Amino acid sequence: MNVSKSASCGLDFCSVPDLKNCLYIANVSKYQFVIIPLVHPNFKREFIFGSAENRSGPWTRSDVILCSSVHCIFIDWNTLVVGKLSPHIYVDSKVPAVAKNSEETLCQEIALAIHLGLVAITFKLNGILKKNMNLARIIFNKLAATPHFQAQIWVQIPMENPIKQAYFYREDKDINQLKIESPWQWWNEFRIVCDYNRKLIVALIVSHDLPDKEEIDRWLGEPVRCLIIPTTVFITNKTGFPVLSKAHQMMIKKFCSLKVQFVITGASRHQNIVYYYHYIDHLWKNWQPNGPIDSFARGFEDYLQCPLQPLMDNLESGTYEVFEKDPIKYTEYQSAIQKALIDIRLQRKNINNNETIVIMVVGAGRGPLVRAALNASIKIKQKTKIYAIEKNPNAVLTLQALQQEMWGETVIIVSSDMRKWNAPEKTDILISELLGSFGDNELSPECLDGVQKFLKDDGISIPCSYTSYIAPVQSSKLYNEVKGCKEKDKHPLSHFEMPYVVHFQNKYDIDLPQPLFTFYHPNKDLKIDNSRYGKNIFKVKQDCVLHGFSGYFDAVLYKNIKISIEPRTHSPRMLSWFPIFFPIKDPVNLKAGDEIVSHFWRCCNLKKVWYEWAIEKPIPVAIHNPCGRSSTIGL
Amino acid sequence: MNVSKSASCGLDFCSVPDLKNCLYIANVSKYQFVIIPLVHPNFKREFIFGSAENRSGPWTRSDVILCSSVHCIFIDWNTLVVGKLSPHIYVDSKVPAVAKNSEETLCQEIALAIHLGLVAITFKLNGILKKNMNLARIIFNKLAATPHFQAQIWVQIPMENPIKQAYFYREDKDINQLKIESPWQWWNEFRIVCDYNRKLIVALIVSHDLPDKEEIDRWLGEPVRCLIIPTTVFITNKTGFPVLSKAHQMMIKKFCSLKVQFVITGASRHQNIVYYYHYIDHLWKNWQPNGPIDSFARGFEDYLQCPLQPLMDNLESGTYEVFEKDPIKYTEYQSAIQKALIDIRLQRKNINNNETIVIMVVGAGRGPLVRAALNASIKIKQKTKIYAIEKNPNAVLTLQALQQEMWGETVIIVSSDMRKWNAPEKTDILISELLGSFGDNELSPECLDGVQKFLKDDGISIPCSYTSYIAPVQSSKLYNEVKGCKEKDKHPLSHFEMPYVVHFQNKYDIDLPQPLFTFYHPNKDLKIDNSRYGKNIFKVKQDCVLHGFSGYFDAVLYKNIKISIEPRTHSPRMLSWFPIFFPIKDPVNLKAGDEIVSHFWRCCNLKKVWYEWAIEKPIPVAIHNPCGRSSTIGL
Repeated sequence: MNVSKSASCGLDFCSVPDLKNCLYIANVSKYQFVIIPLVHPNFKREFIFGSAENRSGPWTRSDVILCSSVHCIFIDWNTLVVGKLSPHIYVDSKVPAVAKNSEETLCQEIALAIHLGLVAITFKLNGILKKNMNLARIIFNKLAATPHFQAQIWVQIPMENPIKQAYFYREDKDINQLKIESPWQWWNEFRIVCDYNRKLIVALIVSHDLPDKEEIDRWLGEPVRCLIIPTTVFITNKTGFPVLSKAHQMMIKKFCSLKVQFVITGASRHQNIVYYYHYIDHLWKNWQPNGPIDSFARGFEDYLQCPLQPLMDNLESGTYEVFEKDPIKYTEYQSAIQKALIDIRLQRKNINNNETIVIMVVGAGRGPLVRAALNASIKIKQKTKIYAIEKNPNAVLTLQALQQEMWGETVIIVSSDMRKWNAPEKTDILISELLGSFGDNELSPECLDGVQKFLKDDGISIPCSYTSYIAPVQSSKLYNEVKGCKEKDKHPLSHFEMPYVVHFQNKYDIDLPQPLFTFYHPNKDLKIDNSRYGKNIFKVKQDCVLHGFSGYFDAVLYKNIKISIEPRTHSPRMLSWFPIFFPIKDPVNLKAGDEIVSHFWRCCNLKKVWYEWAIEKPIPVAIHNPCGRSSTIGL
Repeated sequence: MNVSKSASCGLDFCSVPDLKNCLYIANVSKYQFVIIPLVHPNFKREFIFGSAENRSGPWTRSDVILCSSVHCIFIDWNTLVVGKLSPHIYVDSKVPAVAKNSEETLCQEIALAIHLGLVAITFKLNGILKKNMNLARIIFNKLAATPHFQAQIWVQIPMENPIKQAYFYREDKDINQLKIESPWQWWNEFRIVCDYNRKLIVALIVSHDLPDKEEIDRWLGEPVRCLIIPTTVFITNKTGFPVLSKAHQMMIKKFCSLKVQFVITGASRHQNIVYYYHYIDHLWKNWQPNGPIDSFARGFEDYLQCPLQPLMDNLESGTYEVFEKDPIKYTEYQSAIQKALIDIRLQRKNINNNETIVIMVVGAGRGPLVRAALNASIKIKQKTKIYAIEKNPNAVLTLQALQQEMWGETVIIVSSDMRKWNAPEKTDILISELLGSFGDNELSPECLDGVQKFLKDDGISIPCSYTSYIAPVQSSKLYNEVKGCKEKDKHPLSHFEMPYVVHFQNKYDIDLPQPLFTFYHPNKDLKIDNSRYGKNIFKVKQDCVLHGFSGYFDAVLYKNIKISIEPRTHSPRMLSWFPIFFPIKDPVNLKAGDEIVSHFWRCCNLKKVWYEWAIEKPIPVAIHNPCGRSSTIGL
């Protein structure tokens, strides 16, 4: 059931007289797994009044059925089979005997599934928490306390509340007035009571009428690993094959990036069940994300990385290589440098083209910006002198080699920390690429403040400004990832008090990003202060959960030349930066119409810089990372 | 400033030209400490535009003032003086220069207070979180990251919102429509953002008009350590002395059990400021809690104890001694036994008084119930034969000595676990005292089920039933105590997943207790099942915070003879049981009118019993203690 280039598709059986035959049917039609009842309904058991204990016959098929033919015990059970819990189980019944009997049945079926080593157990969640409190307790008990519990629990949830669908065609009732809760609420409450257990997975049952866009998008922030598509949802095209409506196609496209699996359920309404598979596989292959960022980022989806600290640590050769590959960033820098050179030439009218313009590249790395500056100079035939300052001695080696082999004396290599260097002359243009995913988070402001004394009064800094952005995010995936980062000897909250660089995939954007902190260069304030404080107010469109904030930046390199990773203005095909994620320690339940009021601080002392963040509304959440106790960026 | 038999009272000074003189004035008038500004307002400093750094004179008095005369450096500062932060500090100003300058001032004053080693720093909190986010951040930063931060922070909060008071006499505005938030909201939001830091303490400013009873009671669940009483709140009695109104007296009485200190503030409006002290001290001494439970429980207020496990562990001699001292419990048992003996006599009319009635005391300990049974028999002249079964061999020694010296052959001592013993005959009455604070939590049901086979078909069990009760509770004190119980090698939530026995003091009852689980003895069910599930719905009267549930029990010993620790029916003067506390991992903010829906489970397997609990509404909270992972009671 691993994700491959073909869609992973399963076939749902409502009853299984002969399991081997089922597997054969599924297999010849290209389905990779089957969903079958764990126990035949005829074997409904009775524990409370003693009949189950007294019965002598077996209560379900033996676990050796699959193995006799293939000589590999259990192997099929744990790759091919998802087990369905009996639908008559009703542990929240108000009739004590029914509840008690259901509990025994449930425990027995789960024990069987564990014994067989199934990949997953699945059941339908019907209704709000009130009706499922005992179910939640028993499932959570099994998950929390069974150490060898390998199976996932697929919680089947309809995309639309069946009650809403039932009322849809009735004119005597106004659906909006009925306040029918969304099935997402069922899921949200259920998993909260199960303490966000990672093994709880959503299997969405695709409905005929789809909910509106926002509701579908909200599922993108949940651990949806399976779409269950009833055969009745398919329509027949002109040539007689099953296809999906445009709306359904678009919905499925959204989930393709979450690497979902599919399950076809219901009686075949077309010539051959393989057609459903073919169609799903066709959609899947069409919609595999395939942009340069996607292929670059493959495997990094929702993976938490600690932000780089290039100021404190020297980057490795491989890291340089990755970033130098960016097809966009250095082109933009080159355009910016070119424009700046032209402007300087125009401004100083007395300068003829033979006078040299001085450029300093601070933090030159292995030279991509030096190359950009050289290219720009050549292109507009402007004589330049380029200082390349780099503190990493290993990178300096590369620079020196390039200088000797290619650049010649136009370029002067300086092996020094830019903050300690004493420049022999002032520069016309100061170029740097010190920006992190959150703009200032690699301490570009502090570094550039330190070197701006070498910039002429009318000199130009590239970049000349940058702004960070934040947006509220729902992502139970990321919440769970951060929760799993707990380290024993650190402050118990420290994993929630640091930002992570992450290629977001499984998330729902609660509201659009808003600007947070802006820095300008050169900074001509009398007393430079790079601490910042920002308060943002976001709107909540529908009930959802806040798990943290996504962070982005954009930068003005020079005049209209900008680079951005803010989603609405993202520089096409630029891949140097993934966004950043600021988690919060406790998920906050949000209601449609709520305001989220967030507070972010950028704090500085002589040795380090750090962020603190907190929430004021809808409910207050404690200040994260006070005094930088969990994460700082060293100067 | 420790709590003694006299009230601890401080005197507030708005300006201090001569500190030694101030202390002298306070001291001769019996005040134990003073509250003074940390810095004279004339020394208002200016950091942003450089003047503070350039000024050469001192910015406040020297720290050696107090020491020269008494030859003990600093000792006075850290017992006698509470420092007030400058009222002009406004770190949340929207004018950046004011905010920045305020921050510098605030940090300097806090540093001074730390340097002097003051017991406490105090400031007035004005308004909602929105207006105090930066203040909260800076205070929390200092608390979280200054390891030698010994001082408490006294947050001064008015009992009534000044806006409400201002509108009170105006007829053109309806106060109820204005939705003026209570100052408790200011506090609640502020301390949440400061992550419930233990050093944040409430100093309530007593207002002329008191809020209603519920609002005052809500403060009893907060860490109120000081009442600040303006002199203008006092009225003058016939003899010319300052006294408080009845309403104010009643309010102060409530806080006396929290061991608050007092501060008198404002100009003296009576002949001598000592009169205020005398009056407060008079109230204080009158209202020291002095019942038998209070004196028995002194020192145990809000102290968390793990429930006893007498079934697994043998009790110590001292423990027996404490419980045998109960003046009520054994009297009630004796009455119940007496009534049962009479009933048996009446029922078996053919029995003349000479026939022997058999009594078994299971878990006889050091014999108090044997004594009660003997007393009852003697009183109604009924011949009895008493089996005293006890598993603790050390307690058996005491029983055997008593039997030889006093009881004689009427009493038969059996040294055995009641669950393993084989009785030589069946008994008429089965007596036990296996109840815990939560009724069944010391496994009385399981034990009595095991021995009821020795009870005659028409035999009587004493107790014959018991019921546990729960009630939702606000107590930031207990929340913080539980939070502090974190143990490194256990599950990160385990301290929130166990019940604690606790003598509640600093708490607010959100709603009245409701019954939860009931057990009857003898249990004549075909299949005995001691697992239980209970769902309770509580009403929230005003905005507050849920920190957990208090637990109680009552028991029917026999017919109308009951014992109870449920507050409304508490057996007077009975002291054997403190209540129990079930914490929840995250405080839940509640709104007036909300419903709290709680779910409790009593779970059993062959080896142990445990509780699980969760909340469904107003927001779901995860199931605590799944599978008894954090706490169980061993069989």
